[in-house]
Amino acid sequence: MRISDIIEKKRDGKELTEEEIRYFVNGYTDGAIPDYQASALLMAIYFRDMNETERAVLTSAMVESGDQIDLSAIDGTKVDKHSTGGVGDTTTLILAPWVASLGVPVAKMSGRGLGHTGGTLDKLESIPGFHIELSNDEFIELVNRNKLAVIGQSGNLTPADKKLYSLRDVTATVNSIPLIASSIMSKKIASGADAIVLDVKTGSGAFMKDLRDAEKLAHAMVSIGNRVGRKTMAVISNMSQPLGFAIGNALEIKEAIETLQGNGPDDLTELCLTLGSRMVLLAGKAESVDGAREMLIQNMHNGKAFAQFKKFLIAQGGDAKVADNPELLPAATWRIELPAKKSGYIDSIVADEIGKAAMLLGAGRASKESEIDLAVGIVLHKKIGDPVKEGESLLTLHTNSEDVDNVKQAIYQNITISDQPVQAPSLIYKTIES
Amino acid sequence: MRISDIIEKKRDGKELTEEEIRYFVNGYTDGAIPDYQASALLMAIYFRDMNETERAVLTSAMVESGDQIDLSAIDGTKVDKHSTGGVGDTTTLILAPWVASLGVPVAKMSGRGLGHTGGTLDKLESIPGFHIELSNDEFIELVNRNKLAVIGQSGNLTPADKKLYSLRDVTATVNSIPLIASSIMSKKIASGADAIVLDVKTGSGAFMKDLRDAEKLAHAMVSIGNRVGRKTMAVISNMSQPLGFAIGNALEIKEAIETLQGNGPDDLTELCLTLGSRMVLLAGKAESVDGAREMLIQNMHNGKAFAQFKKFLIAQGGDAKVADNPELLPAATWRIELPAKKSGYIDSIVADEIGKAAMLLGAGRASKESEIDLAVGIVLHKKIGDPVKEGESLLTLHTNSEDVDNVKQAIYQNITISDQPVQAPSLIYKTIES
Repeated sequence: MRISDIIEKKRDGKELTEEEIRYFVNGYTDGAIPDYQASALLMAIYFRDMNETERAVLTSAMVESGDQIDLSAIDGTKVDKHSTGGVGDTTTLILAPWVASLGVPVAKMSGRGLGHTGGTLDKLESIPGFHIELSNDEFIELVNRNKLAVIGQSGNLTPADKKLYSLRDVTATVNSIPLIASSIMSKKIASGADAIVLDVKTGSGAFMKDLRDAEKLAHAMVSIGNRVGRKTMAVISNMSQPLGFAIGNALEIKEAIETLQGNGPDDLTELCLTLGSRMVLLAGKAESVDGAREMLIQNMHNGKAFAQFKKFLIAQGGDAKVADNPELLPAATWRIELPAKKSGYIDSIVADEIGKAAMLLGAGRASKESEIDLAVGIVLHKKIGDPVKEGESLLTLHTNSEDVDNVKQAIYQNITISDQPVQAPSLIYKTIES
Repeated sequence: MRISDIIEKKRDGKELTEEEIRYFVNGYTDGAIPDYQASALLMAIYFRDMNETERAVLTSAMVESGDQIDLSAIDGTKVDKHSTGGVGDTTTLILAPWVASLGVPVAKMSGRGLGHTGGTLDKLESIPGFHIELSNDEFIELVNRNKLAVIGQSGNLTPADKKLYSLRDVTATVNSIPLIASSIMSKKIASGADAIVLDVKTGSGAFMKDLRDAEKLAHAMVSIGNRVGRKTMAVISNMSQPLGFAIGNALEIKEAIETLQGNGPDDLTELCLTLGSRMVLLAGKAESVDGAREMLIQNMHNGKAFAQFKKFLIAQGGDAKVADNPELLPAATWRIELPAKKSGYIDSIVADEIGKAAMLLGAGRASKESEIDLAVGIVLHKKIGDPVKEGESLLTLHTNSEDVDNVKQAIYQNITISDQPVQAPSLIYKTIES
């Protein structure tokens, strides 16, 4: 077998065999196939795509290129959730205790990551004492006991994906459905989930700006998951404006607490119910999506979801008083309001630009070495479609620096106000269940 | 400027600017741009093509990546000929003295190359004493005096093309019109020609199997040549069967001598007249193609073409007696006839397979290190459309090994005989003059 023949075959639009795909993934991972042949193949895949069988094989080969987490010692169906990323997305912090309160085991491996705000780990570290340094045995024991634990990523997961992702990043081959789908799914599958619920974002704040592309990606991932034996569903949700009101680490923890208590923003609550009901269904804890949704609403109102959150904090050394008194969370020195410059209706809140503004305040990392300020961020007071009066505050900046003129300016450029009434956008575009 | 942006731009089907193309060619030549980004761009070009402006800029950038031969000390318009390669193609050996006999200066740089038979240099070395070791001054002086000299390739011509070609070879990006055209044209232009006549082959023995692809390549090269200020024309000729009768080094020298004397195969003679008349026209030695053709025919009949050939041999140390007595050329020990297995009409002579058979006899190089046997080869007695009787010889193997069963078998598999009369194929499909 020669890699140049495999490149030519894909270049000519033909289906690659399982043997050919594994030859490529294994050869590239161990260095036998050089970068320049891999990048030519990636570009050929960009143009010619892969069919569902090829995508599933590519994903499996990437999974098998490294360690695979074994969660078999945890009772029940382990359901993982993955979001393709957006601005102000606090769903993981809310969903984990919420579905765990219904007996769904949540064994969460989480990272720090780059972006507008920190990752789930950074956010949890707003809570004094909370730590993720658990042995594997402690982690599994904790999930079996409490149904929920969070641990840092460890092991050499999907080295093929890491190497391919670095190469794609510098060869203009990131934006390819089969490559994105196999990259995401290989990491989820190697992390040991039995079932996966995907939140595919679309709109200005999402990687997939276009709804049709988001649908294609969702279908691709659901097909891969089901083909490799993991029950998988996807929800396509709107990320044209930030989700919820809060963007920032401690600010999002506070919003998560409010949501678990039934006092969260409507859109964030609805997205959690949509994703959570599918997690509960896939875990076999409900007969139908509607039934699962009812159970979740019940546990929000009866306090069990919130109680589960506190139990989780305590089990990992966190100060649970914070849950009852969010004012104990790190707080920024200044709160600066941004008044509307005219009256009308909110027409757009460009999600990724607002996210960048939060990062400018210090809420996120531009590079791996950056320090995060857990206290800072943005809290919106208005969302698209809301009426607003001139001088009324659009949002509050939580900042540890008084000099935020550049942030203000950036935000004003990315929130537009219309004279005419504006329809609030749909939150959930579609759910893909097979 | 970032190469990943350039890859993305081409990937998305946009036109690259001159600055971007030069940034790529220069960066890749000097090693600043790595192979893996170059191969991704090449694959994007494979799919998205380049327009005529981009192709001309790419060619110029490759020309300027290395040395350029300065032939300005030679009087007149230097016309070069290039063939995309076929089987039994002796045209260079015939055309060089033939057009020189009409005062067209021919300053030929020639290589050895790989393939079914040797390159022009190998063939000339069948002539005892002939050598190509000339200084640049001797070379130029010789062309000014005799209108014809041949020298080996020297200098660091088109290093960008050399590096890109090696990369294309292992990344399935050879077969791309803009990349083939710029590669060929950059070498011709760097070699100093003022005008270029191209012989683009099509059919089973050619790189471009398909006539439409051959036309596209011809148009691409003519456009590049004219855009960079070199008068360029192209002829598209048939290479579904070998050209002429002889395939082999000394055998082709003999056929060249016969053709210069007016006794050559019809197809070889016709192709030389077609290409030669355009060379004479571009050199400004005739008013029209038809006029140039008449002049060439005249110099064939009056012996001036043949006399020019002898003068050329003598000037470079060769034994001109060989021209009058071709039996002095290296000859193989055995001549083995291949009788037809049935009566009928020759339906196909698969050119590249017959070429490979000649190489098996030792006429060509499989690798740079291979030794060539100048004496061996194949002489056809039949061409497509010819009637043949069972037992009549199809061709003669000239061989220095008695054990040629594998060669015979390969040839029988690639010459088919039909019961029905077969139309001889056209030799010249098209000429592209602007």
